[in-house]
Amino acid sequence: MSCNSCSLKEDNLFVQRVSALQKQLADGPWDAWLIEDPLDLYYLTGMTFSVGELWIAKEAVLLLVDSRYLDSAKQKSSFPCSLKSWDASTEFLKKWLIKKVAFDSAKTTVARSVDLQKKLDFVSWNAVLQITQTLREVKGEDEKSRIRQSAALLWEGYLYIKTVLREGITEKEVAKLFEIFCLQRGADGLAFEPIIAFGENSALPHYRAGGKALQKGDVVLIDIGIVFKRYCSDMTRVVFWGTPDPMFIHWLDLTISAANAALALCKPGACIRSLDKAARAVFEREGVEPYFLHSLGHGVGLEVHEAPRIRFDAEESVLKPGMVITIEPGLYLLGKGGVRYEDMVVITDSGYENLFPLDKAFL
Amino acid sequence: MSCNSCSLKEDNLFVQRVSALQKQLADGPWDAWLIEDPLDLYYLTGMTFSVGELWIAKEAVLLLVDSRYLDSAKQKSSFPCSLKSWDASTEFLKKWLIKKVAFDSAKTTVARSVDLQKKLDFVSWNAVLQITQTLREVKGEDEKSRIRQSAALLWEGYLYIKTVLREGITEKEVAKLFEIFCLQRGADGLAFEPIIAFGENSALPHYRAGGKALQKGDVVLIDIGIVFKRYCSDMTRVVFWGTPDPMFIHWLDLTISAANAALALCKPGACIRSLDKAARAVFEREGVEPYFLHSLGHGVGLEVHEAPRIRFDAEESVLKPGMVITIEPGLYLLGKGGVRYEDMVVITDSGYENLFPLDKAFL
Repeated sequence: MSCNSCSLKEDNLFVQRVSALQKQLADGPWDAWLIEDPLDLYYLTGMTFSVGELWIAKEAVLLLVDSRYLDSAKQKSSFPCSLKSWDASTEFLKKWLIKKVAFDSAKTTVARSVDLQKKLDFVSWNAVLQITQTLREVKGEDEKSRIRQSAALLWEGYLYIKTVLREGITEKEVAKLFEIFCLQRGADGLAFEPIIAFGENSALPHYRAGGKALQKGDVVLIDIGIVFKRYCSDMTRVVFWGTPDPMFIHWLDLTISAANAALALCKPGACIRSLDKAARAVFEREGVEPYFLHSLGHGVGLEVHEAPRIRFDAEESVLKPGMVITIEPGLYLLGKGGVRYEDMVVITDSGYENLFPLDKAFL
Repeated sequence: MSCNSCSLKEDNLFVQRVSALQKQLADGPWDAWLIEDPLDLYYLTGMTFSVGELWIAKEAVLLLVDSRYLDSAKQKSSFPCSLKSWDASTEFLKKWLIKKVAFDSAKTTVARSVDLQKKLDFVSWNAVLQITQTLREVKGEDEKSRIRQSAALLWEGYLYIKTVLREGITEKEVAKLFEIFCLQRGADGLAFEPIIAFGENSALPHYRAGGKALQKGDVVLIDIGIVFKRYCSDMTRVVFWGTPDPMFIHWLDLTISAANAALALCKPGACIRSLDKAARAVFEREGVEPYFLHSLGHGVGLEVHEAPRIRFDAEESVLKPGMVITIEPGLYLLGKGGVRYEDMVVITDSGYENLFPLDKAFL
């Protein structure tokens, strides 16, 4: 759907994405979307603003930015842009006869919504959850390419971690070395603080990295993620430093089996809940399901956790080609240790593409 | 104010901070605060949760976390803690006869507030702006110590940047080298993406770092910040690579004079607006005030931009001992270049402590 009235510069990626949101307006009850989340703004304009407003009406689009960004926005924006002010918003809303505006309830603070309703009180304000979600959860070719590159560099970082492990090195030291390695190779930065957990610390699914020194027999849980060209990657592997408690070797095998059970279902049309169920069923058969303390996975893209959530209580949604998700079953025993195995897959037209190889290492 | 009824483990920093919020309850219309922002939770508990609820009533405190955090919270928390659930919140609210809850409107999304009001509908929900602000804007000894360490390491990073500048190096390369340098020396990470701007890019106050290569005669604007032991630091210096347009040398002198005019006012009791006014007056006398495109400064702490904002339109507030603020006048000419000079100061009992030395370099 093209947009003649808003003097778009070219029919590019951003115009296509915004057009898709305009199409949603045509089919729904609202006259305009207001987009303010910086990642959504990046997704829809290709530019980075700490503060900005993208007004999307059925027949017009307007980007409002403050004075810091105005010149670069004028040069690069696919959409008309102007200096952000209440007057500018008012003018746009009145010009295009907009009566019902929808804003994103998951990304707008109460304080901001109060301000909007007070300053632009001649329209009705409607809270809508995750306006860009159905668009952003399906990745285009450019996005998949960036995510593949992000994952490839992350895998290099994982292989590097295996080379730096030595008796006595601390979790924090490993995390720092990994971060520097990835930055030197072109990562924008970390997608999250690395989880490098030795021994009993691996039992805590959301541990970060602490002062514990590596000892013979430790489970080493490595859950890492980076950002590359703005796109995140996320993976977990467990390696054994020396010979661990045999239970953890068994648990890692079970966990890989659980992951494989979910992966086997990964194709367009698969019910998202069924993935969690399939992995859980493997654990249930072995009587270890109570040790699986979190949900199975999540979408990955501009954010490291985004839609779709891969949970047993997920809504009745299905996988679509272009979705990028993690599959990450794990088993944890407090005070002893735990294992997790996390792949990241792109849903293809016929199945899935796993971005990480199998790896089970005894070092 | 101590709290006998909530079995606090010790009269520590976190208990003191929470007690201060309890005192605000005693003096105000609400029965309880609900704190959910991760940085506020860190400030009030010393622990890091991506999700958590700290309920502070006049006579009781309860920390609710999910299963990932429960064991470590039970070990370390100064407050009673329990598994997060609507039932747990309900029980606390009913037990302590809480009728009016205040939540933070600047840190709570509309979606979350709708959820809270629906699930806990037997209390009234009251949006309050920046609940922890008056506490957090005045730093304690431990915080000032961490901020000084953060600033000291940042200064080392700045000196390092001066050693890596060479003809042809790009802004992005400098930014990356700086990041790695700080990480290797113990920084948690960057407080923001470094602004390394060569030549005409220095005219854009919110430029980041791009592909421009350093050339003779360039203004080099370096606006950098790191996080160290959770606390931010932030500074800007301009160095000249070769001989720049003499206007920028003059502008840098004016900018330092403007900073000094504001710094001269930095002491307890000074009206915050007067700082911005004093800096602006220096520019006005020289007829360059229109080139000063942003406000004068901001508080720094757990966040790199926090209260107090140092603006001409700031509320009638005054400086207090323990505040940590930036003073950062600048002058910008689009297409040509710009200069900014940013110090970070701690307000002391009698004046201020500047965390960065004067530096004006021709390289």
